[in-house]
Amino acid sequence: MTLPKAKPPRIQIEEVWPQIDAGRYPVKRSVGDEVEVWATIFRDGHELLGAAVLYRAPGEPEWQEAPLEKTDQPDRWTGSFHVDRCGRWEWTIEAWVDRIASWRDELSRKVEAGQTDLDSELQEGAALLEVPRLDVKAALASTETDRSESTRLVRSLEVDCDRPLARFGSWYELFPRSWGGFKGVEKALPALVGLGFDVLYFPPIHPIGVSNRKGRNNTLTAKKGDPGSPWAIGGKEGGHTAVSPELGTIDEFDRLVARARKLGIEIALDFAIQCSPDHPWLKEHPDWFHRRPDGTLKYAENPPKRYQDIYNVNFDSEDWQSLWAALRDVVLHWVEHGVKVFRVDNPHTKPLPFWEWLIHEVRSVDPEVVFLAEAFTRPPMMAALAKAGFSQSYTYFTWKNSKAELVEYMTQLTRSTLPEFFRPNFFANTPDILHEYLQRGGRPAFETRLVLAATLSPSYGLYSGYEHFENVPVKEGSEEYLDSEKYEAKKRKLDGPLLPFVRRLNEIRRENAALQRVDNLDFLETENEQLLAYVKRSEGNVVLVCVNLDPRAEHEGVVTVPVWLGLPPAYSATELLSESEFHWRIGRNYVRLGPGQSHVLRVEAR
Amino acid sequence: MTLPKAKPPRIQIEEVWPQIDAGRYPVKRSVGDEVEVWATIFRDGHELLGAAVLYRAPGEPEWQEAPLEKTDQPDRWTGSFHVDRCGRWEWTIEAWVDRIASWRDELSRKVEAGQTDLDSELQEGAALLEVPRLDVKAALASTETDRSESTRLVRSLEVDCDRPLARFGSWYELFPRSWGGFKGVEKALPALVGLGFDVLYFPPIHPIGVSNRKGRNNTLTAKKGDPGSPWAIGGKEGGHTAVSPELGTIDEFDRLVARARKLGIEIALDFAIQCSPDHPWLKEHPDWFHRRPDGTLKYAENPPKRYQDIYNVNFDSEDWQSLWAALRDVVLHWVEHGVKVFRVDNPHTKPLPFWEWLIHEVRSVDPEVVFLAEAFTRPPMMAALAKAGFSQSYTYFTWKNSKAELVEYMTQLTRSTLPEFFRPNFFANTPDILHEYLQRGGRPAFETRLVLAATLSPSYGLYSGYEHFENVPVKEGSEEYLDSEKYEAKKRKLDGPLLPFVRRLNEIRRENAALQRVDNLDFLETENEQLLAYVKRSEGNVVLVCVNLDPRAEHEGVVTVPVWLGLPPAYSATELLSESEFHWRIGRNYVRLGPGQSHVLRVEAR
Repeated sequence: MTLPKAKPPRIQIEEVWPQIDAGRYPVKRSVGDEVEVWATIFRDGHELLGAAVLYRAPGEPEWQEAPLEKTDQPDRWTGSFHVDRCGRWEWTIEAWVDRIASWRDELSRKVEAGQTDLDSELQEGAALLEVPRLDVKAALASTETDRSESTRLVRSLEVDCDRPLARFGSWYELFPRSWGGFKGVEKALPALVGLGFDVLYFPPIHPIGVSNRKGRNNTLTAKKGDPGSPWAIGGKEGGHTAVSPELGTIDEFDRLVARARKLGIEIALDFAIQCSPDHPWLKEHPDWFHRRPDGTLKYAENPPKRYQDIYNVNFDSEDWQSLWAALRDVVLHWVEHGVKVFRVDNPHTKPLPFWEWLIHEVRSVDPEVVFLAEAFTRPPMMAALAKAGFSQSYTYFTWKNSKAELVEYMTQLTRSTLPEFFRPNFFANTPDILHEYLQRGGRPAFETRLVLAATLSPSYGLYSGYEHFENVPVKEGSEEYLDSEKYEAKKRKLDGPLLPFVRRLNEIRRENAALQRVDNLDFLETENEQLLAYVKRSEGNVVLVCVNLDPRAEHEGVVTVPVWLGLPPAYSATELLSESEFHWRIGRNYVRLGPGQSHVLRVEAR
Repeated sequence: MTLPKAKPPRIQIEEVWPQIDAGRYPVKRSVGDEVEVWATIFRDGHELLGAAVLYRAPGEPEWQEAPLEKTDQPDRWTGSFHVDRCGRWEWTIEAWVDRIASWRDELSRKVEAGQTDLDSELQEGAALLEVPRLDVKAALASTETDRSESTRLVRSLEVDCDRPLARFGSWYELFPRSWGGFKGVEKALPALVGLGFDVLYFPPIHPIGVSNRKGRNNTLTAKKGDPGSPWAIGGKEGGHTAVSPELGTIDEFDRLVARARKLGIEIALDFAIQCSPDHPWLKEHPDWFHRRPDGTLKYAENPPKRYQDIYNVNFDSEDWQSLWAALRDVVLHWVEHGVKVFRVDNPHTKPLPFWEWLIHEVRSVDPEVVFLAEAFTRPPMMAALAKAGFSQSYTYFTWKNSKAELVEYMTQLTRSTLPEFFRPNFFANTPDILHEYLQRGGRPAFETRLVLAATLSPSYGLYSGYEHFENVPVKEGSEEYLDSEKYEAKKRKLDGPLLPFVRRLNEIRRENAALQRVDNLDFLETENEQLLAYVKRSEGNVVLVCVNLDPRAEHEGVVTVPVWLGLPPAYSATELLSESEFHWRIGRNYVRLGPGQSHVLRVEAR
């Protein structure tokens, strides 16, 4: 039977927050955030304890310290520290016995109880305070403190700090080939900036394969002149590090990126790990691809779906290490060309450890890089990709259209630990998803879904065409667009009738901090199944939103503002879309909204 | 930048249950339990997975395996294993890719989609099944499975399995000096067994110090003949391993223990780590005690409370290792004398790592040993003692007398992870606690509190005198007994008028498995603040209890049985105290209960 060699610490530090899976993954915060921390700290006996949070910035060897204070919960302490740069911050809790304060506390309780035989106690105090002698008055008036038995967490914890853009931003997606290539897009930049967009996202810009190229409307054989799908990456001109001659030159791309940065909008690229049959890697690295026993390459498929124009790489390849390195180098190549935002195609079909490694590697080089996961799969994998490091993720928003669906889904997204690491990006449409609600609801449907996306989620996006109310599916029951831009080039311009409304919403989003977070959401009763009302609150800013979900009819109802929101009994509220004044109160507030109409009310401070 | 040396596993195993603090502490189960386990298991891609729980009994090198099955929650799996002996069981989750099943699944989806070009797929299957060739029919009819990419938890988890007595038992506490010492107690054993008690607990049986001995009613100076408090351990006859000559000899003690075992009742000893001024350790190990700068020993105190007759040991002693070893050897000494149950006095004033070590050491020698923590302190320490290894714990039950208090407290005890490691023992009274409810409520108060203790908690206890309705405090406002047995010997006999009721309740407890667990509790609406109703359910056994909390008046109300309990629309129920038949139903059931009266209804199977 064995005794411990060193005396184990008597102080217990438990239920430390925030942490994910016992510290296996970092929580996410953005530059400028105050990181609140919590811990339950206790020890046997009656000694008084002190505690602090120790933290250090990425790459800093020295710990800094901020105090923890006791809360009104038993043995529960809290404090905070400020994060002011991107990267992995490290933190831990330190707790200690304050022997001097403990001695003073015991002495004062004895004095209160009328004890007078205190010579031993005063000698004890003199020894602690390193003075020759003490009387009771001097002892009780002392203010010295002490740190004994200092104890830290067995394992320090991490905060992954990224740019505010990782949490909050308005995205616009376009196919550069429909806008005159890189040069044409460059011309559209000032208008996009004027509309309030923060990110301009391009589907893959690389050479497109010719073998098995898809034709218009996803037909199996391309006709002459059909440009193919940009996701069939790689041709004789190169693979993932090349640009398609159809779009311009790398110099033109670089100029576009530089101009965008100057104007204050970011270019986001697509990172799709798949190769057309003409991708150089198929010849250079045949061992990176899955071959059947009969020697044939296996194209991408998920029966009954088949993607004959692309091959997936084989992550079980013997040569997986060079494959990982090559994929990382693709991302770093574009980082060197000034791209700091990547939308990753189907990350849930690639190994999670690969993503954790790649994102960490890239962000070690440039901690400002942001990764958006294009994953639509079961909740555990959605969460796991975020834990592995994706800054934000596509969601099921597009398929949540009824009040019950929206409330249930938002409750999932904002519940328990998820907001600590999972950040939604609500795209109202994508080149793959034209929801029936938009197909059938006309302009009001587009207005409603825009307001929902822009006010429920700090990050949201539109795929070009939305502002023109494009709503024709390839066939009844499909969510694919007719004459999808995935398989053909269009002539696009920034002149859709919805754009003024988009611009106003983006302004409102920038001016109201409450709309820049997701975990501050509460739903309100409306007494009407077609009226969805919610409130978002942050310090000094409260925004109430009420949306008519029915694109076909006007609805009236009563928005109930509960007392626990802490608003004044009656207050004025500015309706930010119409810029008119409302008078609202705690309790029931009448609303009437036409099809596609919403109220976005800012509660005004007194 | 570095690549991992080995290819990391693609399978993720998350949210594994049950575990406490990420596996830092074991969960508790008892012999005969089925341990249900849960895990979220997934992998990138579309491969089909398989999973199992691996487990091994204490000391066994070989893993055994039980299958996990998918649940209707996304990626959530469950299974179980049986624990049939005391000690630490180890378990882990293993998951794997079933390549053959994945191939078959993909093939069948292709066949369903009408694909006919399946030669490559069939060759692939032939290679997997190690047959020369396959046709579609044979391929789809194959039943083989496969395990690839087998992945286990990074760290295996533990189940601490103990005797059912650690979870479920009826305790009786007496001071042997009031019953004629060990010989007298031996004579009382058959009657105690007949009453249905499982454990007979003695306050310390060791020699009592004479220096600073306390007199009757806790006076500072003992008069001649005053026996002193048994918790002032140690005299010239010895310390923690000696027996007080007042009680008998060690041989008489051994005979008592042997007789108790034969009759089916256990002797529980008190383990109180403190010494009277006459304890041999003060001379043998002066360095185990805290000395002030002026050289004086510091007696136990928690101002304004003072315990002048005892000294605490100093766990910060330089010689802490020999102190730990000596304390362990005290417990092992009594284990060798056949004692398997220890009630530990004030464990929350000693270091938690010490308890974790001591309990583990003792149970490594004899895994049947049970430890009861006498801790009344803040919730985090109460929970931490249980995590550290205490089999069960005293609680705040004594101070929870109103309906709201009882509901709130039981909800705490049965919520979230607590029941996985914390087991309550509801003492209705103790030598330290005579609650005002008992002081003022007369016989009905004693009946009500007995039923609550015996039916809310699987383990409960009475301190002798309860059955006589002893209810006089030392002074108004105190919870101490007048003429407390702690400071004087009484003449006790097993003839209290409440004993037939105790016997019946203990019978009911043994006959109804639902009363032998704590986490199966639900409260029911009664429409009366003085009527507390609850139901406990286990497989094949449902017990409904309704208690009148008002010791002064009859009350009537309506117990509402909700549909979600799954009982038949109407059913017969046996009232087990009166052995009469009731007809109850889903919905509202009228009850009327006099002061001290309760219903304990067993729902009868059809």
